[in-house]
Amino acid sequence: VDYQHVQVPFEITLWIMLASLAKIGFHLYNKLPSVVPESCLLIFVGLIMGGIIYGLNDRSPPVMDSDIFFFYLLPPIVLDAGYFMPSRPFFENIGTILLYAVVGTLWNVFGIGFSLYGICQVKAFQLQDVSLLHNLLFGSLIAAVDPVAVLAVFEEIHVNEKLHILVFGESLLNDAVTVVLYKLFRSFCEMPTIKSMDVFAGVGQFFVVGLGGVLVGLSFGFTAAFTTRFTKDIRVIEPLFVFLYSYLSYLTAEMFHLSGIMAIISCAMGMKRYVEANISLKSHTTVKYFMKMWSSVSDTLIFIFLGVSTIGENHEWNWPYICFTVIFCLIWRALGVLVLTFFVNRFHVNTITSKDQFIIAYGGLRGAICFSLVFLLPDFHRKKLFIAATTVVILFTVFIQGMTIRPLVDLLAVKRKRESAPTVGEQIHIRFLDHLLAGIEDICGHWGQYYWKDKLEYFNSKYLQKILLREYDQPKSSIVLLYEKLERKHAIELAQAGQLGHGPAHPSFLCSAFLCSSSDTTGITDQKWEDTLNPNVLDNIQEILTRNLYRIRRTGPAYNRHTLPGDSEPTEQEKEILILRHKSL
Amino acid sequence: VDYQHVQVPFEITLWIMLASLAKIGFHLYNKLPSVVPESCLLIFVGLIMGGIIYGLNDRSPPVMDSDIFFFYLLPPIVLDAGYFMPSRPFFENIGTILLYAVVGTLWNVFGIGFSLYGICQVKAFQLQDVSLLHNLLFGSLIAAVDPVAVLAVFEEIHVNEKLHILVFGESLLNDAVTVVLYKLFRSFCEMPTIKSMDVFAGVGQFFVVGLGGVLVGLSFGFTAAFTTRFTKDIRVIEPLFVFLYSYLSYLTAEMFHLSGIMAIISCAMGMKRYVEANISLKSHTTVKYFMKMWSSVSDTLIFIFLGVSTIGENHEWNWPYICFTVIFCLIWRALGVLVLTFFVNRFHVNTITSKDQFIIAYGGLRGAICFSLVFLLPDFHRKKLFIAATTVVILFTVFIQGMTIRPLVDLLAVKRKRESAPTVGEQIHIRFLDHLLAGIEDICGHWGQYYWKDKLEYFNSKYLQKILLREYDQPKSSIVLLYEKLERKHAIELAQAGQLGHGPAHPSFLCSAFLCSSSDTTGITDQKWEDTLNPNVLDNIQEILTRNLYRIRRTGPAYNRHTLPGDSEPTEQEKEILILRHKSL
Repeated sequence: VDYQHVQVPFEITLWIMLASLAKIGFHLYNKLPSVVPESCLLIFVGLIMGGIIYGLNDRSPPVMDSDIFFFYLLPPIVLDAGYFMPSRPFFENIGTILLYAVVGTLWNVFGIGFSLYGICQVKAFQLQDVSLLHNLLFGSLIAAVDPVAVLAVFEEIHVNEKLHILVFGESLLNDAVTVVLYKLFRSFCEMPTIKSMDVFAGVGQFFVVGLGGVLVGLSFGFTAAFTTRFTKDIRVIEPLFVFLYSYLSYLTAEMFHLSGIMAIISCAMGMKRYVEANISLKSHTTVKYFMKMWSSVSDTLIFIFLGVSTIGENHEWNWPYICFTVIFCLIWRALGVLVLTFFVNRFHVNTITSKDQFIIAYGGLRGAICFSLVFLLPDFHRKKLFIAATTVVILFTVFIQGMTIRPLVDLLAVKRKRESAPTVGEQIHIRFLDHLLAGIEDICGHWGQYYWKDKLEYFNSKYLQKILLREYDQPKSSIVLLYEKLERKHAIELAQAGQLGHGPAHPSFLCSAFLCSSSDTTGITDQKWEDTLNPNVLDNIQEILTRNLYRIRRTGPAYNRHTLPGDSEPTEQEKEILILRHKSL
Repeated sequence: VDYQHVQVPFEITLWIMLASLAKIGFHLYNKLPSVVPESCLLIFVGLIMGGIIYGLNDRSPPVMDSDIFFFYLLPPIVLDAGYFMPSRPFFENIGTILLYAVVGTLWNVFGIGFSLYGICQVKAFQLQDVSLLHNLLFGSLIAAVDPVAVLAVFEEIHVNEKLHILVFGESLLNDAVTVVLYKLFRSFCEMPTIKSMDVFAGVGQFFVVGLGGVLVGLSFGFTAAFTTRFTKDIRVIEPLFVFLYSYLSYLTAEMFHLSGIMAIISCAMGMKRYVEANISLKSHTTVKYFMKMWSSVSDTLIFIFLGVSTIGENHEWNWPYICFTVIFCLIWRALGVLVLTFFVNRFHVNTITSKDQFIIAYGGLRGAICFSLVFLLPDFHRKKLFIAATTVVILFTVFIQGMTIRPLVDLLAVKRKRESAPTVGEQIHIRFLDHLLAGIEDICGHWGQYYWKDKLEYFNSKYLQKILLREYDQPKSSIVLLYEKLERKHAIELAQAGQLGHGPAHPSFLCSAFLCSSSDTTGITDQKWEDTLNPNVLDNIQEILTRNLYRIRRTGPAYNRHTLPGDSEPTEQEKEILILRHKSL
């Protein structure tokens, strides 16, 4: 046995296998995931694994490497989040999201940092040696809401779209703030004296880091879209470009100390519509499926590793500090949400209700990003205290808040996500109103969101599509695309139920079938076909149809047993179209 | 800029990107790939890249790491080969393939080794210090035909199925022989004296390494199939198991010094039919697509790295040795094929023609496996000579043989692969003959391939399917599956062409449409529907159909412009079914 030789790939594969099998295990036993969020279960599995490793080796199990986390586990999750981001609610609430992400995070960082410094002044707690800067550094890493943890919990509780995008958008966009503050305080810690210039430079960095990330992401996204213009002859590597370019955008942003998360999100959002138009349907399925699979595995691994890394001896259990950290995290977040929402609600017609505010405050889960950042701290004598406090905050938010948020949502009767997709009528009305509002804004001279959206759409169809799309002369309307999608779906359902009538639906075969029985088959042109539609042929049609319908009635149920009853039922949207079409006949 | 930090993932991503862009580049310019095989073009790109790196840094560019090759680049290609292996021709010719792979490889190793030792005795060449063992060791690594190179060339020349499977099967299965001989000679090189016991132990190892690999692979394959029984609730990670288990089988086999290639091939072949029955259609598309994508990228990277690694200063250019290596490789392979085929033809009705023999001998391309093995050699003073000789042999076979094999195939008029898939009639006849021959063999008491195939099929349906398939009580006949697949494909084509007739094909909607216009819609039972099919309704049908057909004729061509003309044309097999069905009406 030569284990040493294959150790690295073998152990990686085994960890992924463990993660996947754990996921299957939870879903086999149905009751568990409906009560406890999957993230808690996974951390629990991790704790057990860590305990086993600790028991067997008698030393601390390996801690999740920050490089592995930031380079290999985080990007798939963020890519998935960006690619499947519902862009309409995101851009509608972008102002509120940015307010929460920037001002809210700053508020939390300084709130937590200063109040923990206050606690450190109490002599009984023996914490006088923790300086203000260290407390602020700790605040900067513990304040940020974690996208992975938020996604894991909020995907299961189905709150309304706006609430979801507010919490989730904040967790994604606060990355720039966290990165800047964390790096700023860390460099301050190592500086002998801090000049006021450095503080101003730090403020300027926000914009550089955030906007720089977006720019890097967009440029890679458009390059990706441009590349997929030329993959027509070699369909099989199309999905690769989506992954390669978004990963490159992340790495490039990280290389220039910009926000990698912002880069990968804007890359994914930027390339999505062009790439999807260029690549084949099967490539598209592969991209979607693989993205989901990858992010799901990364997510699972992160929570398992969180559990494993918790076990061990690198903690300093100073309980007053830890307890006050948890309390301050809760209090400052609640206060921040209240104050910020007060201002937001003054400028919006569509206000955020107090129930929603509570869920936003309560949904501020911490996760693996804090955990990785705390291990990246430079060595100093209280690092183990910070690690312990971070671990407790993460476990508290994921376990206590994650497990109670679903009952609370039920109890407060928070508005849920609408179950059905909007009908075609609604969609058309929404689009009509968008155009109308854009026109009104243009006339008023008010450059609001509808005005900019309209301008962007114009720029897109005028320039971007011509460069990035393979068949730019044919921008299909989304109604036509929806129709095509419905037709395709319906056709597959018909085929699966054995009800596809080849005869009546396929004119060329119908034609040849008729003419075989009547006259010569050669030289049928389109013109002739219309002429041959005489009463004699129509009788023939009648006969075929009678038999055909009988055949369908007989064979239908026999193949139906393999399809679920719900599967073949058309959705509201489809029904609407079908009924309208039949009425028009 | 912090390049050091992101270097590893960044450079890996850039190499993959270069490989993918190179592939797109070749396909943009259509004439090139039809003359020069892609593998040659990629090596050429690699040579240029290597030259650039060499020119800029003024030192040898990095050589392809053998660990990276064997752990990360080779498995995807072999997995793809095993998963898409046409099992019928493979098992029909398994005897011949094994003869070529085992006896043929042994013949080549000893032939090349001893004759090179003969060359070394010529004083003028200054090679007296290369011992017999070293020559045999070199022979063991240079003799083996490379699956990656063979696949790259033979996929483009479309020779008949039997010829393809003979060369390709040999290149895959000779791995066990190569591994054993290579390790044997390498350990002999380090031993002071060689006992006859060691030689016998070496012979025994063939079976252990080969069969052990197969056993490891099959056990992992069946575990994979068993695991996918339980993924119904969590479809998104289904494709993962296919990759994880086959990779684990490869690593496990390598860990026990068994043949990893044999393991991964038998794993893929073992799991394929069960996994495909268990997982969803979209998962299946993802598995197929991703496997192709991955193997295609690995393949590209291997050839580029081959080119890059060729540039540099780790070569010793002793031309007599190198030239004689190339000549002996050609001669011994040709002789081996001639002698072995003579014996094979004596026992088979379906003989291998002399043209086929020539292509088998000529198609014995060497590739990256030899290259990685020669770098894994222990350091001794003539290692650079071996590296140079291996490089020249690889370049000679890939460039000269790879580029001339297509014109030769044309010139000799070698039997090509049949373009169309077998018709349903042919398939049924083949199956019928299989059963008949199994019966005849059973009666004769001759345990031939049909007898064993029948027994295996029985064992499969009796035990394996019940354990490994989720819905084992419904083993669909392959005719039904083919029918379903055709229906699905046809339905999608109809929908894409805008020719799906909802009205006539969907009885429930048709029914409601009729009854809306005539009487009450409530309480329609199945019984009633048949009663309502009176002449009045049939007239109605006629009218709908007339309008419908007109609509189809008008809208059809409008949507057709996006589908290629070839796309919507039904294949021979489909046509046959459709024509038969219309005749039956």
